Amino acid sequence: MSEEYRQMWTDLGLDLEAHDALLEALGKGYQDIYLSQENRPQGMQYFDFVMSEVHGLRVKELIDAQKQGRKVIGSFCVFVPEELILAIDGISVGLCTGAEFGFAEAEKVLPRNTCALIKSAFGFGMTKVCPYMEASDMIVGENTCDGKKKSYEVFKDVVKDLYVMDIPQMKSDSGKELLRSEYLKFKEKLEQLSGRRITVDDLRKGIETVNAKRRAVHRISELRNADPVPISGMDALLINQVYFYDDPQRFTESVNKIADELEERIKEKKGVSAEKTPRILISGCPMAVPNWKLPWIIETNNAAIVGEESCVGERGTRFLTDSEGSTVDDLMDNIVDRYFNIDCAIFTPNQSRTEHILEMYDKYRADGVIHYSLQFCQPYQIESGPVESTLEDKGIPVMRIETDYSQEDAGQLRTRVEAFVERLKG
Amino acid sequence: MSEEYRQMWTDLGLDLEAHDALLEALGKGYQDIYLSQENRPQGMQYFDFVMSEVHGLRVKELIDAQKQGRKVIGSFCVFVPEELILAIDGISVGLCTGAEFGFAEAEKVLPRNTCALIKSAFGFGMTKVCPYMEASDMIVGENTCDGKKKSYEVFKDVVKDLYVMDIPQMKSDSGKELLRSEYLKFKEKLEQLSGRRITVDDLRKGIETVNAKRRAVHRISELRNADPVPISGMDALLINQVYFYDDPQRFTESVNKIADELEERIKEKKGVSAEKTPRILISGCPMAVPNWKLPWIIETNNAAIVGEESCVGERGTRFLTDSEGSTVDDLMDNIVDRYFNIDCAIFTPNQSRTEHILEMYDKYRADGVIHYSLQFCQPYQIESGPVESTLEDKGIPVMRIETDYSQEDAGQLRTRVEAFVERLKG
Repeated sequence: MSEEYRQMWTDLGLDLEAHDALLEALGKGYQDIYLSQENRPQGMQYFDFVMSEVHGLRVKELIDAQKQGRKVIGSFCVFVPEELILAIDGISVGLCTGAEFGFAEAEKVLPRNTCALIKSAFGFGMTKVCPYMEASDMIVGENTCDGKKKSYEVFKDVVKDLYVMDIPQMKSDSGKELLRSEYLKFKEKLEQLSGRRITVDDLRKGIETVNAKRRAVHRISELRNADPVPISGMDALLINQVYFYDDPQRFTESVNKIADELEERIKEKKGVSAEKTPRILISGCPMAVPNWKLPWIIETNNAAIVGEESCVGERGTRFLTDSEGSTVDDLMDNIVDRYFNIDCAIFTPNQSRTEHILEMYDKYRADGVIHYSLQFCQPYQIESGPVESTLEDKGIPVMRIETDYSQEDAGQLRTRVEAFVERLKG
Repeated sequence: MSEEYRQMWTDLGLDLEAHDALLEALGKGYQDIYLSQENRPQGMQYFDFVMSEVHGLRVKELIDAQKQGRKVIGSFCVFVPEELILAIDGISVGLCTGAEFGFAEAEKVLPRNTCALIKSAFGFGMTKVCPYMEASDMIVGENTCDGKKKSYEVFKDVVKDLYVMDIPQMKSDSGKELLRSEYLKFKEKLEQLSGRRITVDDLRKGIETVNAKRRAVHRISELRNADPVPISGMDALLINQVYFYDDPQRFTESVNKIADELEERIKEKKGVSAEKTPRILISGCPMAVPNWKLPWIIETNNAAIVGEESCVGERGTRFLTDSEGSTVDDLMDNIVDRYFNIDCAIFTPNQSRTEHILEMYDKYRADGVIHYSLQFCQPYQIESGPVESTLEDKGIPVMRIETDYSQEDAGQLRTRVEAFVERLKG
């Protein structure tokens, strides 16, 4: 990395030594896991570049934007509406939560029985190695699970300017009113932060920009129903991960380019794996960069991942926000309607998630489902029981996996995945 | 137990063999733990009787009441307003959640990483040994923690007539509106179940009955600030536990009788332990019958428990409900106001709980605080960190204990408690 970046990281207050170690591990992991894949679409070169510059060029862009008065808003969850952030000409970035880094620090202030995603956020924050966290003008937390809700009370002492948004637990009228009221408060907070009042045009533009991103990833998703699959699940996951911090327009263009390429590949019957490779749908907890453990184990086991029912995947991106409306209030209503549909396991009951899994299973012609929970993630772990029963009742092969960010169980997971893939072939 | 009860249990569908085993263990535990205490107030004989008849006479009373058309409502949480249940002439009972029973069954449908309280409810329900659960006309769940919220989705297949009430997560205006709306729905549900419309007089009477119970336990609490303490923490906990299923009037009278007796004891300087015995405040998760492990370890270690900052304790009973108001709506507002004040760790932020711990620490002249969390109870576990820091900053000795319902860690706990008590003496 250039000297320019080192100065930037120093200015951000990063711990350079720890950060170097992180970048080295990340680079090596990417090399081993991503660059070793065969038959990748050419368009993935853009994402290889993004990943090689993930703590460099993109962070510099954020800082340059800040110099022009734009605000950077960091967040952890698909319930934070990017449309509103774009409406103040802000930049939305997903924060670092995907690596086992600084866990010893995190466990000084959190119970060990906390999920890896939360410990990771604390680890990055406490050891000062996430440039996105340090560069954010405001960090937005949300009351989704107990783990996040309660740990934000501690996190407020780790980062500056933490804003916490409440989220309902039921899809009732009062639940929706609560969400509306929280989104209105968030809009005010953003207006106050930016000194800029959101107009109907700002908001519509924000909605259209995010919808365009979503449409682009929908194109990729739909093309994955081809056999052979034109893109690996690993690469599709990476696109879904980069979704959270790349420049939206550039991201949309790059993804559409890949979609064009995949259409060509499908015509040519060109895939990343052979025809009739067992097809797996992953469902469950989000996988943030660089949490590639399970997909990598699956796809190096002669199986192809054809969809992610996940926040970093179709659960997060499937719905568009209606851009019709003549007032800011109209558009705010559309935003509330859109986000209230997300079927995160924090909701009870959450039947529509199971329906969506079944829908994806059919649409992407999957042969089986792997349910992925982070250890100590109670919402997804508990919900995995009824999900499994419903799927099994329909004769769909399911395997439930519970893991964390360590590599300790990799061998055991590999054995289990291998057996599951064999079962799908049979 | 009499043959009459065996017939009743059979009629309720209990598994008699498992139920016999439970009663035997419970009876033996009570004998060893409770009846071995010295210098107990005479009035505790009533509670000894209640405990000896816990699955007998009280259950018969419920069934007799049902024969007269009254409804029995079972619940798990202090957010379920007993005032409303009494207003339909119903009977409110806390359900069995305090024993390690049927855990193997529970773990077939729940993750092992679920707290003992939830597993216990499932264990009792799945093995059919809780007569209260089987006798209930309706069981009320509530969206407090993730564990309960999500496991009710599974529990609906274990018990009949499960009704789930939503609970807010923040003390915001929208949070309060959500609670109001849920309490109004619950009132309607109760009216529908009983075929009886709640009048202002019904509701006021319900409020006054519950307030009288609360005032009676407040008297006991206040008398525990004496040195020597006139009643053990074990016995005070038992009173708080029986609070949830005894007949309210009879309970209030019995508790007031004990309070009268304690006043006499204090005049005579008569206590359950010597003067200057180290005084401990317990704070944290609720302890349901027969979860007496930690208090028993503390009080057989030459320390006296002087207060319980717990749902089964002062957090659950401290606030009265205002009975002033000329309409049902007025009184419903009072109920919402009252319950919205409860400082359960499911709320964020929850600063008032720490303030209450400090207040109790002073009021009951405690020497130290033991924070008690159930394993995998994320809200209390995470909150215990900031609670500990705040207390330590004020020079208050604190020990954090995380445990479950098994006896496996009893030896280790005893050693830790012993060291803590030594520290308080020093």
